[in-house]
Amino acid sequence: MVKPLFKVSTPNEVITTLKDHLRLKEIIRNNIEEVNIKIALHRFLAEEIVASANLPGFNRSAMDGYAIRAEDSFGATDSLPSYLKIVGEIKMGVTPELKINPGEAVKISTGGMLPEGANAVVMLEYTEQIDDSTIEIRKSISPWENVVREDEDLKTGEIILRKGHRLRSQDIGVLAGIGKINVKIYRKPKIATISTGNEIIPAEGEPRTGQVRDINSYTLGACIEEAGGVPVYRGIIKDEVIRLKQEIKKTIKEDKVEVVIISGGSSVGVRDVTLEVLNRLGKPGVLIHGVSVKPGKPTILAIADNRPIFGLPGHPVSAMIIFDLFVRPLIRWLQGGEYNYNSAQEIEAELTCNMVSDSGREDYIRVFVYKEGEKIYAEPILGKSGLISTMVRASGLIKIGLNVEGLEKGSKVIVRLF
Amino acid sequence: MVKPLFKVSTPNEVITTLKDHLRLKEIIRNNIEEVNIKIALHRFLAEEIVASANLPGFNRSAMDGYAIRAEDSFGATDSLPSYLKIVGEIKMGVTPELKINPGEAVKISTGGMLPEGANAVVMLEYTEQIDDSTIEIRKSISPWENVVREDEDLKTGEIILRKGHRLRSQDIGVLAGIGKINVKIYRKPKIATISTGNEIIPAEGEPRTGQVRDINSYTLGACIEEAGGVPVYRGIIKDEVIRLKQEIKKTIKEDKVEVVIISGGSSVGVRDVTLEVLNRLGKPGVLIHGVSVKPGKPTILAIADNRPIFGLPGHPVSAMIIFDLFVRPLIRWLQGGEYNYNSAQEIEAELTCNMVSDSGREDYIRVFVYKEGEKIYAEPILGKSGLISTMVRASGLIKIGLNVEGLEKGSKVIVRLF
Repeated sequence: MVKPLFKVSTPNEVITTLKDHLRLKEIIRNNIEEVNIKIALHRFLAEEIVASANLPGFNRSAMDGYAIRAEDSFGATDSLPSYLKIVGEIKMGVTPELKINPGEAVKISTGGMLPEGANAVVMLEYTEQIDDSTIEIRKSISPWENVVREDEDLKTGEIILRKGHRLRSQDIGVLAGIGKINVKIYRKPKIATISTGNEIIPAEGEPRTGQVRDINSYTLGACIEEAGGVPVYRGIIKDEVIRLKQEIKKTIKEDKVEVVIISGGSSVGVRDVTLEVLNRLGKPGVLIHGVSVKPGKPTILAIADNRPIFGLPGHPVSAMIIFDLFVRPLIRWLQGGEYNYNSAQEIEAELTCNMVSDSGREDYIRVFVYKEGEKIYAEPILGKSGLISTMVRASGLIKIGLNVEGLEKGSKVIVRLF
Repeated sequence: MVKPLFKVSTPNEVITTLKDHLRLKEIIRNNIEEVNIKIALHRFLAEEIVASANLPGFNRSAMDGYAIRAEDSFGATDSLPSYLKIVGEIKMGVTPELKINPGEAVKISTGGMLPEGANAVVMLEYTEQIDDSTIEIRKSISPWENVVREDEDLKTGEIILRKGHRLRSQDIGVLAGIGKINVKIYRKPKIATISTGNEIIPAEGEPRTGQVRDINSYTLGACIEEAGGVPVYRGIIKDEVIRLKQEIKKTIKEDKVEVVIISGGSSVGVRDVTLEVLNRLGKPGVLIHGVSVKPGKPTILAIADNRPIFGLPGHPVSAMIIFDLFVRPLIRWLQGGEYNYNSAQEIEAELTCNMVSDSGREDYIRVFVYKEGEKIYAEPILGKSGLISTMVRASGLIKIGLNVEGLEKGSKVIVRLF
């Protein structure tokens, strides 16, 4: 007969317990800083970002070619071209002074502003210059073809990014695009690591027989950094109630940490020390004692004065796995982010429509990923490649290979998430 | 008829061109620094790491219980227990002075050193203390059961990590475990970004009609940082051959950058400026002019004085996609890492053997992932959870859910890569 040592909780119960007992809003409300967007990558927004103006703010050519009235190209073909009069050339970065009338064209480069009267751009490839002032057009162009409309990237008043969003490269770009150089974000949570165990010595020391070097301070410190927190290394504390309690109080007061991780104490005696300390630090005290995870069962979670304190197993593997399950998402949570365990970079999804692609090139399609029932869908986000907002809206990219002609609706695709 | 503007290269051709023309060894040889392992996360090793001693270095208990001679437990059951004499208790972190003889047992905690004569640990749960000096054992224990052997985590002389390996949390832990506090790594490559385009103004400015803010400096700067490089922001340069050339020479000399990224110049005129500059900077000059990727076709790659210089398209989306395809892996390469495009966090693989799991707990199994033909396999790495080396050898983790009894050989599993 095996005696159960303690009653274990499921991972979901641990998360529910954290949610129920932590007054999160209180923590993050006082944790806002403003930084330059050049150092805001992977940080969590503490403000909502709204477009204060249209982007690009004027009708812009998406191609090299001629700005025309689309109507003047209607019906044009290789065998029956249209002829237009060249009345000038658009200079980049200035408002064009000229305007075009029926039958006229203006030379324009990618990014140039359309002159008054023009409503389309015909690509250079579909034109031929006949003489100094005449071009031949061999293709019918629709109104606004090859043009980025003035509000096509962003519309004034549109919500671009929400509070709690984790800033990716493209998000930094959109902030630059609207002139938002400084941005309010949540501070990185400071997390102390304390190793316990009388057999543990500092990593720089030379262990005598029976001693081992402190591994957990280093793995957990790196895990904290990787997860977006700031590690505070408090070293090794002997397995004594008074010293451990003092050390925790000290790091909370001196380092102003928001979370404390104690590792070690997998043996019953040491676990009892940790347990006693965690119950003496404040209300509500120890909430979880043992989890149904292997490896990682002897995990303790306490909350004292609205601060989570974890007692992780001493085994490095168990400590890392438990960190991953509970501390990693908590670090996002403490920055106003979503509490999701999964941070996968690639997922399989079902394409929501046919996608055409030319053979002989790799196509990268921006997609928005969403779930309906148990199925994950990837919905292509269409839009010109000059539109940063399409990248902001997208969850990731799918690739259509060099020799693939296209993908059918319902195909399984691999989405490379941002 | 559409006139081809230039001959395009496939993504593979771009990578081959980089490999063939860049004298990589020359660059990385002079790019080594030594840092404390606390700041070495995600950096690339510039030295091979070899175990200088066994880890843990002594036979260690993996459980709380009694150190015994396994032979003394042979045949013990609930109905026919063995009786052993308690001759003392092991103190943590010191070499035990006592030794045990046949019929004797010593109390021991997880992590404690086995005394001379003992070759197994019987778990507390399978024993009962009869009086002050006698325990009853109700289970037969094999030799070395519940013991971490002295060289089970690492063997003296074993290669732990190879040059060019990217350090993960568990790798930092193993370095601590062997007392390797300072480690040689490759410097992060410095990469300059220059935006071109006469319509582009600094992000902090107020655009007049016809002007747009500089987005690419910011997205690419963030991409560089995310990929492990150090961005050097050189701002916006007008589309003139002399100024652009001066700026590139300046950033190479002043900032000592290893790569230059020019973005913008999607229009023919500006592209011609970039092209002329890149051909004037040194040998071999422009190697790629156009790639078969959509979006991103008008990409230029030059090498001058053993330094890659990219001309990325001006469209932010295209610039990011091309960055991802060619610059991101190059940043790994410049640090001695592998040149792989894919940095997925989750992959599907086929399990190589049956895995048993108890219902009512989540199991996390360390696996080594490898490819054979077109198939990807996940091979479980067995070993106690105290062994940091198992995490070092593992590629990732698979999870066996709370209510799953186990997985059969050949099952499809999702591997969460480190």
